Amino acid sequence: MRRSIATVCLSGTLEEKLEAAASAGFDEVELFEPDLIASALAPEEVRDRAGRLGLEIGLYQPFRDFEAVPEPLLRENLRRAERKFGVMERLGVDTMLVCSSVSEAAIDDDALATAQLRALAEQAAGHGIRIAYEALAWGRHVRDYDHAWRIVEAAGHPNLGTCLDSFHILSRGADPSGIRDIPGEKIFYLQLADAPQLVMDVLQWSRHYRCFPGQGGFDLAAFLGHVLATGYAGPLSLEVFNDVFRQADPRRMAVDAMRSLIVLEEATGLERLPAPTTLGGYAFVELAVATDSAAEVERLLVAMGFRHAGQHRSKPVQLWRHGGTHILVNHEDGGQPRPRIAAIAVETPEPLRSAERAERLLAPLLPRERGPGEAELSAIAAPDGTSVFFCRTDGRDAGGWLSDFLTAGPPGDTVPAEVAGIDHVALSQPFDYFDEAALFYRSVLGLELHRGDELATPDGLVRSRAARNAHDNVRFALSVPLVGSGRSELQHLALSSHDVFAAARAMRERGVPVLPIPDNYYEDLAARTSLPPETIERLRGLDILYDEAGGAEFLHFYTALVGPSLFFEVVERRGGYDAYGAVNSPVRVAAQRQ
Amino acid sequence: MRRSIATVCLSGTLEEKLEAAASAGFDEVELFEPDLIASALAPEEVRDRAGRLGLEIGLYQPFRDFEAVPEPLLRENLRRAERKFGVMERLGVDTMLVCSSVSEAAIDDDALATAQLRALAEQAAGHGIRIAYEALAWGRHVRDYDHAWRIVEAAGHPNLGTCLDSFHILSRGADPSGIRDIPGEKIFYLQLADAPQLVMDVLQWSRHYRCFPGQGGFDLAAFLGHVLATGYAGPLSLEVFNDVFRQADPRRMAVDAMRSLIVLEEATGLERLPAPTTLGGYAFVELAVATDSAAEVERLLVAMGFRHAGQHRSKPVQLWRHGGTHILVNHEDGGQPRPRIAAIAVETPEPLRSAERAERLLAPLLPRERGPGEAELSAIAAPDGTSVFFCRTDGRDAGGWLSDFLTAGPPGDTVPAEVAGIDHVALSQPFDYFDEAALFYRSVLGLELHRGDELATPDGLVRSRAARNAHDNVRFALSVPLVGSGRSELQHLALSSHDVFAAARAMRERGVPVLPIPDNYYEDLAARTSLPPETIERLRGLDILYDEAGGAEFLHFYTALVGPSLFFEVVERRGGYDAYGAVNSPVRVAAQRQ
Repeated sequence: MRRSIATVCLSGTLEEKLEAAASAGFDEVELFEPDLIASALAPEEVRDRAGRLGLEIGLYQPFRDFEAVPEPLLRENLRRAERKFGVMERLGVDTMLVCSSVSEAAIDDDALATAQLRALAEQAAGHGIRIAYEALAWGRHVRDYDHAWRIVEAAGHPNLGTCLDSFHILSRGADPSGIRDIPGEKIFYLQLADAPQLVMDVLQWSRHYRCFPGQGGFDLAAFLGHVLATGYAGPLSLEVFNDVFRQADPRRMAVDAMRSLIVLEEATGLERLPAPTTLGGYAFVELAVATDSAAEVERLLVAMGFRHAGQHRSKPVQLWRHGGTHILVNHEDGGQPRPRIAAIAVETPEPLRSAERAERLLAPLLPRERGPGEAELSAIAAPDGTSVFFCRTDGRDAGGWLSDFLTAGPPGDTVPAEVAGIDHVALSQPFDYFDEAALFYRSVLGLELHRGDELATPDGLVRSRAARNAHDNVRFALSVPLVGSGRSELQHLALSSHDVFAAARAMRERGVPVLPIPDNYYEDLAARTSLPPETIERLRGLDILYDEAGGAEFLHFYTALVGPSLFFEVVERRGGYDAYGAVNSPVRVAAQRQ
Repeated sequence: MRRSIATVCLSGTLEEKLEAAASAGFDEVELFEPDLIASALAPEEVRDRAGRLGLEIGLYQPFRDFEAVPEPLLRENLRRAERKFGVMERLGVDTMLVCSSVSEAAIDDDALATAQLRALAEQAAGHGIRIAYEALAWGRHVRDYDHAWRIVEAAGHPNLGTCLDSFHILSRGADPSGIRDIPGEKIFYLQLADAPQLVMDVLQWSRHYRCFPGQGGFDLAAFLGHVLATGYAGPLSLEVFNDVFRQADPRRMAVDAMRSLIVLEEATGLERLPAPTTLGGYAFVELAVATDSAAEVERLLVAMGFRHAGQHRSKPVQLWRHGGTHILVNHEDGGQPRPRIAAIAVETPEPLRSAERAERLLAPLLPRERGPGEAELSAIAAPDGTSVFFCRTDGRDAGGWLSDFLTAGPPGDTVPAEVAGIDHVALSQPFDYFDEAALFYRSVLGLELHRGDELATPDGLVRSRAARNAHDNVRFALSVPLVGSGRSELQHLALSSHDVFAAARAMRERGVPVLPIPDNYYEDLAARTSLPPETIERLRGLDILYDEAGGAEFLHFYTALVGPSLFFEVVERRGGYDAYGAVNSPVRVAAQRQ
């Protein structure tokens, strides 16, 4: 089906919006009238420019406050429409969105609305134009899609149909299965938007918080299923009003939008992609370290029980190992001076299929320099700039990345393996990319998103959201300042342990600088939990934090920062604990500021 | 009365919060428990540090989910309270806030709540501690202040009183006059917060959108009047949860908080300040111009009909004049390279009184270098960095700033005065300071705030708010990106005209680069208004924009930008038009981007 996006979704001038939509591969756009009004391009120039970009203009929107008015106002409204029809002809667009009136002048009289919309459709027909009538969730008298449809049906004019908008329907908690009663050819346009589940004025919710499908809380796959069942064959169009998206880079937002549509189409069977593979956990995490700070990072890795186990054949990359856990250290010259998580590699039985899925989901493939005989790793770039590798560590073929490393140092572990693997990777996101990043990791890697959290830190509120796979061996925690001007650049790598106490003791003995946790925390823990005093004392003695949910427990400690923004965590999950100890994050951030 | 602030209002570590509160002049703080838990300071150290700063800790808060529970949970809750009483003793704080339970374990039984709160108060009494019981607006069974008070009254324990919080009361639309029925000595604490009028889940509204008194939509003066009528003599305490304030500089936020309290105290007669004077309009606006860009600014002023009329006796400042309108051009070396509005001078009959009021409202007085015989201008710094001068242009004394300028050029105007004066000054605000700035200009200059607008621009949404005095001759329009990461650095000076067409023609003839307005704008204007075609053509011919409200009209045009972010506007108000043409701002911003 054709894919469309409303120009209001994107920032920039109309030219920039059109170019962004075209370069993300959209077939058409809905032209949001204020974007035209503010443009220096004449309608013919807009038409030509869109045409050169391979874009159709599928819809002109919105025409407001038309129907069910007293006669003199009707004449005025028809005159207004006539002028807009003229503009539409110059634009070469044949469908106009008329949204249900919010005007106090509108009369609660369906017969009047029907007659006047029929008159409008008749006038439109003279220009070869169709009218798509839509119920706004906050319309004065018409708020429900079935109400709008009854009016359209009663009008019985070939140039009058309805427009369905998932937000207006789902925000009211309406049952969308009634859509199946509408003949598909009378649905003139379909607008898709998701939104987080918020309890607030629906107009404000709509104007500020809409997001692309899969980024909110609506079941858009089910919704679209109902629409498709009618035989609807028009475009799938995104109409999203979002404070953040409206000021972000329009080219990346358009790509994000297109990705959301592909994911939705996959969920409804309209599009077939290579299915996500069953991930086998993390192959490695790669840290990028400037030469100056390499010694500090390596000292910390040694103290945590890692040993330098290999050296890349052709690149300044070291392999560090602790039991079966691998960390790569990439010595960068001239890059960012702060040590950071530069890449994440996941185990997949079919690296090429994983990469193909990612590519179909518009993930940029990263060019890789490869020496002779070295593994051909497939790597993509996540929105936050992190590289994601697809590996098959035990493979003899391209996935066998380990063979790129020459053994360094003596074989075998120097310490018992206190670390069982990588539990999760926590990445702070650039403010404008948070929803995009969550959708990216979820769709590309086949993860499941958790509900978000809000954390109060000394620097302000932070929003976080976690994603993990069904096997619970690939987990991400993404975070972003709640308000754009805030700071949050922390990243960390959480290692799992079967015995966090033993790991804490051993690491401290080897000199790991553990983040000190205030006594006040343990005093509060003693007050609000029924943990025995001796357990509290053991936790306190090792600066281990504690969380509990439904009988499951989470015990964890942090290293001090290495560089300005990177640290490690060691966690033990007991009894199927399935979160990330977010309740303790404010304490952690405050301690990091000391 | 004592002034207090909750630590949760401010960003930073507990140490930073205490210091900020003390340096803004607060007498005490409410200690928000998570701030203690995350602090490395022992309770005794917190007490000592506060004491050294001259701060009392007036309240420990909150203690949650205590009352009306089954017996085993009561025992658990009393044990928890006992531990907190121990912490409070170490802190030296004698009042604990208990907020009404939100727990599903709570039973809807006032008698049970009464008995259990009495038991808690009895236990607290053993530590010399008092319990202040507060109804949360989203409490499970107790949501109204009068309900909480009935429980407190029924308990009849000297160590049990109530805490009133303006947000919890006013957000529910409750009638606060019933507060007068509570004996003042049973009100153990008073928390004050304002909030914008939003229709949303009350918990989210409370947690994210509270603001300081005078920054929102509640009538806090009336509210406080009811509380004072009870004989309440405790502290006035600010408890504000605000996403933006929580990440802003705590020292300036504490000053903003204190200013809001002083303004509120003035409104309720608790505090007497020098009253705002009746402003007589703008004396001048001062532009700061780097030497490189001076020629461009001066060329534009000449084209707009200004002439270089004077030179400051001792500073590199030029006086430019058009009719009775004055603009100063300050040649800065080594300052910001972009031309900008650096200062605003208002006419006041009593400059010293105005300055004294500003100082009492914590406005920083600006030190001025003054040559012999020069006017002693009183100047203060607004939160956005703009200087505000208080002048009396016709005065022979210190206010007579004009005598600081030596005449330059021939006397008299070179062109007829197309400009009647300064209509308004539009200043973009740093994201974190918007509410502060609005309160500052309003309270210091005695202005009235308008309801805010939201404008969609190509760079994202912009929030704007205007303020003006009762005589309508001093107007400000403040704007800020709605989302913190957005950009908005535009500033402009709007000049008023009695004939915008004549002004536009004359200025164009003299070479003023007028911002071109797209034809699409005029096509839309023709569609949506009943302006005759010839009027539309006149507007279009001169790039004049139009707005209409209730029969009053606004006609205005803009100059092109001079430098990256400064421009001028010429406006004509007809029929008492009282806004700023915000509907046209998106068109203007898009044109500026071309």
